[in-house]
Amino acid sequence: MDRRSFTRRLLAGGAAATGVTSLAVASAPAATSAEAPPRTAPAGGQVRHITLFAETLADGSMGYGFEKGKASVPGPLIELVEGDTLHIDFENTTDVAASLHVHGVDYDVANDGTVLNKSQVEPGGKRTYTWRTHVPGKRADGTWEAGSAGYWHYHDHVVGTEHGTGGIRKGLFGPVVVRRKGDILPDKQFTIVFNDLTINNKPAAETPNFEATVGDRVEIIMITHGEYYHTFHIHGHRWADNRTGLLAGADDTSRIIDTKITGPAESFGFQIIAGERVGAGAWMYHCHVQSHSDMGMAGLLLFAKPDGTIPGYEPHHPDHATAEKSAKKAKETAASMGAAHGTDGMADMPGMSH
Amino acid sequence: MDRRSFTRRLLAGGAAATGVTSLAVASAPAATSAEAPPRTAPAGGQVRHITLFAETLADGSMGYGFEKGKASVPGPLIELVEGDTLHIDFENTTDVAASLHVHGVDYDVANDGTVLNKSQVEPGGKRTYTWRTHVPGKRADGTWEAGSAGYWHYHDHVVGTEHGTGGIRKGLFGPVVVRRKGDILPDKQFTIVFNDLTINNKPAAETPNFEATVGDRVEIIMITHGEYYHTFHIHGHRWADNRTGLLAGADDTSRIIDTKITGPAESFGFQIIAGERVGAGAWMYHCHVQSHSDMGMAGLLLFAKPDGTIPGYEPHHPDHATAEKSAKKAKETAASMGAAHGTDGMADMPGMSH
Amino acid sequence: MDRRSFTRRLLAGGAAATGVTSLAVASAPAATSAEAPPRTAPAGGQVRHITLFAETLADGSMGYGFEKGKASVPGPLIELVEGDTLHIDFENTTDVAASLHVHGVDYDVANDGTVLNKSQVEPGGKRTYTWRTHVPGKRADGTWEAGSAGYWHYHDHVVGTEHGTGGIRKGLFGPVVVRRKGDILPDKQFTIVFNDLTINNKPAAETPNFEATVGDRVEIIMITHGEYYHTFHIHGHRWADNRTGLLAGADDTSRIIDTKITGPAESFGFQIIAGERVGAGAWMYHCHVQSHSDMGMAGLLLFAKPDGTIPGYEPHHPDHATAEKSAKKAKETAASMGAAHGTDGMADMPGMSH
Repeated sequence: MDRRSFTRRLLAGGAAATGVTSLAVASAPAATSAEAPPRTAPAGGQVRHITLFAETLADGSMGYGFEKGKASVPGPLIELVEGDTLHIDFENTTDVAASLHVHGVDYDVANDGTVLNKSQVEPGGKRTYTWRTHVPGKRADGTWEAGSAGYWHYHDHVVGTEHGTGGIRKGLFGPVVVRRKGDILPDKQFTIVFNDLTINNKPAAETPNFEATVGDRVEIIMITHGEYYHTFHIHGHRWADNRTGLLAGADDTSRIIDTKITGPAESFGFQIIAGERVGAGAWMYHCHVQSHSDMGMAGLLLFAKPDGTIPGYEPHHPDHATAEKSAKKAKETAASMGAAHGTDGMADMPGMSH
Repeated sequence: MDRRSFTRRLLAGGAAATGVTSLAVASAPAATSAEAPPRTAPAGGQVRHITLFAETLADGSMGYGFEKGKASVPGPLIELVEGDTLHIDFENTTDVAASLHVHGVDYDVANDGTVLNKSQVEPGGKRTYTWRTHVPGKRADGTWEAGSAGYWHYHDHVVGTEHGTGGIRKGLFGPVVVRRKGDILPDKQFTIVFNDLTINNKPAAETPNFEATVGDRVEIIMITHGEYYHTFHIHGHRWADNRTGLLAGADDTSRIIDTKITGPAESFGFQIIAGERVGAGAWMYHCHVQSHSDMGMAGLLLFAKPDGTIPGYEPHHPDHATAEKSAKKAKETAASMGAAHGTDGMADMPGMSH
Repeated sequence: MDRRSFTRRLLAGGAAATGVTSLAVASAPAATSAEAPPRTAPAGGQVRHITLFAETLADGSMGYGFEKGKASVPGPLIELVEGDTLHIDFENTTDVAASLHVHGVDYDVANDGTVLNKSQVEPGGKRTYTWRTHVPGKRADGTWEAGSAGYWHYHDHVVGTEHGTGGIRKGLFGPVVVRRKGDILPDKQFTIVFNDLTINNKPAAETPNFEATVGDRVEIIMITHGEYYHTFHIHGHRWADNRTGLLAGADDTSRIIDTKITGPAESFGFQIIAGERVGAGAWMYHCHVQSHSDMGMAGLLLFAKPDGTIPGYEPHHPDHATAEKSAKKAKETAASMGAAHGTDGMADMPGMSH
């Protein structure tokens, strides 16, 4: 078994044991070498059904989850291919009205999750939300219609205020990825939400770290919520400021960036090859607004060598104190909160039926 | 008469009666069906003359208008095609020096509307500002020169401070659209200005709603002014983050978005097909900075069925209280302030000569 | 000698006398007429060595410089071509630990300039940082890898806080430009850093002006640091919101803008032809957040006629009081601080060996 398969199997096993969940695009076998063409998204057009619960967690925060009692912050990743339809049987187990509002995909106004359109769900109540997606193409009048592909997100629009400010603050949000047929699929996916001055609702001392092995195709889904603008920055890696975060080729004039200003309810995503041209290491990601990073809006991309070691990274070294607690917490987070999503072995998670 | 023509005629009539004005690109007949190719911008190259007044309104705010006594906030839409030249006979009827500064088009330094360049106009004074535009093309040295096309805007640069902070706060700003030959023309145009914590200088209880019929090609011109950054968001519709807001085709890698961070003096625009794939409804638009939306930086895109009804929308329902007053106010706004611009029947408005 | 060569020789001479320095891409002869194809970047692949000093300046600020005792704020421009490797012999002459962290280029984790990775330099200490760059191309798996080209920057990551907040505040930052073979080279380069509410760490009364002659290809490298978001705006000129700031041709759908929201650690750049279609003049550049411009975040692009005159610009006129002091200060700045970079005659500056 090569190291990447090994790593993946290990992580997938860990994930299976700890409840990390996502609604994955495909259960294609993992690539066996870096030289093989990467896996790509199949054609869409499926009609899918899942269940989703809005819940109050033990610490008073709120989250979405595919199974009762297993809500996380952020909520689980929902991944579709253009052309797919998703029916979401939603249950609100909290003691306040809540809803599900989504960005990017198609929904009629009765599915927008607002009080305005009476599409909220009372405490203990249920309803089905339907999201549709579509491929790009020409309209009857000859003009071009964009497809649904993008890095999107869902959130409550009801708790606290008619814009869901209380629900968002407490954790009622999660990522949505809609792929186009042929889009390159990642090996690992990490969701990073800058929500006010937290990362994934974790304060400074507990911000998540994310682990991968050099060579892994890592996808980062970046969402902002709350009050503040931020500048999302990663060390040693960069991406294209376009739909996929990947250049389409030599003619793509998109800017290559490693820092991006972003504000509440914006979302973007990209893929990087962990350690490409820079090697293994503990690579910081952080908000680059100086007071925000100083207050702890930072974490680590822990990109290990195939043997699992990370050059220069000693979790127990005093200089790594922050990193250490973050790393410890991140593992808990990954286990209990779904902050890190694996793409392997998730196709048959409970609550989903094709 | 089909419903779209009917709707348009009605609106055009209403607009004519109430003084909504814009400097339109063309008076081509409206498309008669969704299957016909859309109207497109003709070649530019015209030399146009208009009059523009800076005025103090009854409530103490300030605005620009094509006719004396008819200033609005935002000011009237000025629409050009690349290659056009516009001479603006400007009269300042206020009791302070004021000016006209424009973004995006060509003007020599004596036409920049700053005190630095002595291009302001004293109270009661007049002068002519000249704006030029150009098509894209190759320079003599072989490099590519961009054209003037874009969603731009004009504003005072003198009132209150040497950067026009007082004039902008009080309403001295308006939209400019420069089209490229062949650009698709919209059926309806709405200008939305986030100016500090207002929309089109209207506070929370009076923010404008905008009305269209499903299938209309709606153009939104979004401008920010003042102090704050915002994230402009619309429900159920999205656009391309490029020059036109429309993808050029399958090779265009621009990100498709429904939320965009923006700050003072930025402007962008896009076209959506009202209700495309989502149907009629009361679709929110709002700033997604949570405290801003909670303070009322929100309004409605009221996209009706051909019969004029809007599913789920009951203006007198308590949940629609905000919407209701907004809707009422929006009509007044559209009537008195030029916040909503129609493209039909505007070609011969007073103050403009070709 | 034509006027452009004359201007250049004069400036180059002045620069040589006053220590303005940059690590230039090429010492190709200047274009002799506007009709000749512009100079372009050669192929990369060189291994370069420079020395760089972190120093405390007389006024208590801190800066980077190529020579001991000649640090500037911002630090000197470092310019590379994709494929180049740069070894930087770094010496910290200050009395606190400092570092060199760079955006955009390739570096292993031991060269990231953070305490986390023990890559800072103690007071009086030395070390070598190595940056690598690469051309775009296909990976072994067939996917496209972006090149290193971009408008990037370097800064301290250690002084004051583990994110370098104190070092950045005091001036430890500078521009990096990585070009692609064939990229058009500018005639003049100006670095503008919005650092908190200063421009290039100069407060309102002393913000820099920048001088060029109509027809010069002027490159602006714009960097933001600190706490605030800004909207960078220039009068009378605009650029493409893509990698180079230049459209690649008729098919490039990038938005043309003259105002851009930006936040800490973002950087972008573009080229304009001074006065193109608008002529000579004192053209403002400023932050368009109204309170920021009112507090003095503004300066001038002084684009002169070939005879050196600037229409409407009288440095001693009261209306130009701010501009005047800025102009005076800018010259000092250009002389002592490296805020304005010339591209001529810099190839052999001390501290650099190919």
